[in-house]
Amino acid sequence: MNELKPIDPNYEARIRSSFEKQGVMKTIGASLVKIAPGEVVIEFSYDPSLAQQHGYIHAGVLTTVVDSACGYAAYTLMPADSEVLSIEYKVNFMSPARGETFKGIGKVLRSGRTITVCSGDVVAVEGCKERVVATMLATMISVVK
Amino acid sequence: MNELKPIDPNYEARIRSSFEKQGVMKTIGASLVKIAPGEVVIEFSYDPSLAQQHGYIHAGVLTTVVDSACGYAAYTLMPADSEVLSIEYKVNFMSPARGETFKGIGKVLRSGRTITVCSGDVVAVEGCKERVVATMLATMISVVK
Amino acid sequence: MNELKPIDPNYEARIRSSFEKQGVMKTIGASLVKIAPGEVVIEFSYDPSLAQQHGYIHAGVLTTVVDSACGYAAYTLMPADSEVLSIEYKVNFMSPARGETFKGIGKVLRSGRTITVCSGDVVAVEGCKERVVATMLATMISVVK
Amino acid sequence: MNELKPIDPNYEARIRSSFEKQGVMKTIGASLVKIAPGEVVIEFSYDPSLAQQHGYIHAGVLTTVVDSACGYAAYTLMPADSEVLSIEYKVNFMSPARGETFKGIGKVLRSGRTITVCSGDVVAVEGCKERVVATMLATMISVVK
Repeated sequence: MNELKPIDPNYEARIRSSFEKQGVMKTIGASLVKIAPGEVVIEFSYDPSLAQQHGYIHAGVLTTVVDSACGYAAYTLMPADSEVLSIEYKVNFMSPARGETFKGIGKVLRSGRTITVCSGDVVAVEGCKERVVATMLATMISVVK
Repeated sequence: MNELKPIDPNYEARIRSSFEKQGVMKTIGASLVKIAPGEVVIEFSYDPSLAQQHGYIHAGVLTTVVDSACGYAAYTLMPADSEVLSIEYKVNFMSPARGETFKGIGKVLRSGRTITVCSGDVVAVEGCKERVVATMLATMISVVK
Repeated sequence: MNELKPIDPNYEARIRSSFEKQGVMKTIGASLVKIAPGEVVIEFSYDPSLAQQHGYIHAGVLTTVVDSACGYAAYTLMPADSEVLSIEYKVNFMSPARGETFKGIGKVLRSGRTITVCSGDVVAVEGCKERVVATMLATMISVVK
Repeated sequence: MNELKPIDPNYEARIRSSFEKQGVMKTIGASLVKIAPGEVVIEFSYDPSLAQQHGYIHAGVLTTVVDSACGYAAYTLMPADSEVLSIEYKVNFMSPARGETFKGIGKVLRSGRTITVCSGDVVAVEGCKERVVATMLATMISVVK
């Protein structure tokens, strides 16, 4: 069902350049750690400036990172002259976001001409233990620049 | 249907104290501008450190603020010895988040003993024009401390 | 923000004709009770053939009716040569769906060229009491026939 | 993370008995085809009485079946004296629901004492071809009878 063949061979450069422009990724201290057809991973480290009242990472920060991961996962499969926008998403929070580092993993579930459906996970890494702390289901749209 | 009578008369102090502990609210530069039974409003100003690739506020930052607004709206109606946690939320993005200031407005739709359902809006203020740029439907849970 | 002026003056006939083709609406015994620009209401009566294990209306049946109400609310504002499709929706269930009749109310929150965002409620009517038992946030797409 | 060990050894009988009481499952002609710890599959066949205006299965009918599959998947792990209720769900529709038979597959993502998070898929079977036509992310609650 999925069309995981990029139309634009330069998708990686296109995503790196877009990511650089996301001021909020610098604020979070996030970096792109994987860009593959239909999959993008973004990582960041724990910092109290990203926390909610109990000292865990705020749900919205987890959402920010996994939304960008899902958006860029969709963007790997979009044409060179397109922009990607989040239409909507839903996130479930499954455990407190406790950890040293966090990975937002975005994957394309179904890629269409206009609409792309993605699923995402946030994995918290604590010592050698990994745990899914949030899961996203998102709808992205391709807009001609 | 809604029980909008706070059980804990000190709900406002409880919310202000919790908000002060949210490191991410300082990072965003957000402040509490309204705390009423079943309704909380949080405001912040545009800053490039909160932006996505086109210079608009990142969807995840809008989500962070309206999630806190919804969570605290729910928290106004919870007992003094409780904590509020976001189980899940869904957000639709309706327009680019362009503006000078942004208000995250959280309201209780239905307050139960364990589960509270909230709706939220993010309003972008640009000059004298206000526009809803995002809308949230969220599920909060009350946990005994 | 909303463009609640129908482009197609014959939107009502177009919706009635589409509704007649929905076999599942006959199965549920549902009928269109309001068609206005950006708002549609569909009603049905309690029947054990629509129930879940406790005898209340199944969440999915509530969803079916309010999804059609939201889809047709979006469709009132779409061009004559378009089709409406549900891309996705989220529903919160706030009370057991107990009642004699049920109204699925769909309203357009934001109407765009391609994407329309709708909110919906299911109201249970029990004697002279009305109660919102479910609330929907939905994304509809306009597709050229 | 998941606790996929049933507490109640009689979970299968409990689910079969509950399913029998769901009037809407008879209306849809659905049957339980798999009950395993943390996973339930429900199947039904195409019928015009379940269709939307283009003759495909209505989004709400897909939702009904995959909601029951997710609810019962959660229920496999709940205590004998509990009830399962859907708090909320979100569904993305990825392709027209065209096919001869349809399988609603519900799986537990994370099982907690009160809250269980499930993911679900609806697979359309057309000849020897299978296609995911809808995907759900759902929150279930365990309530003491």
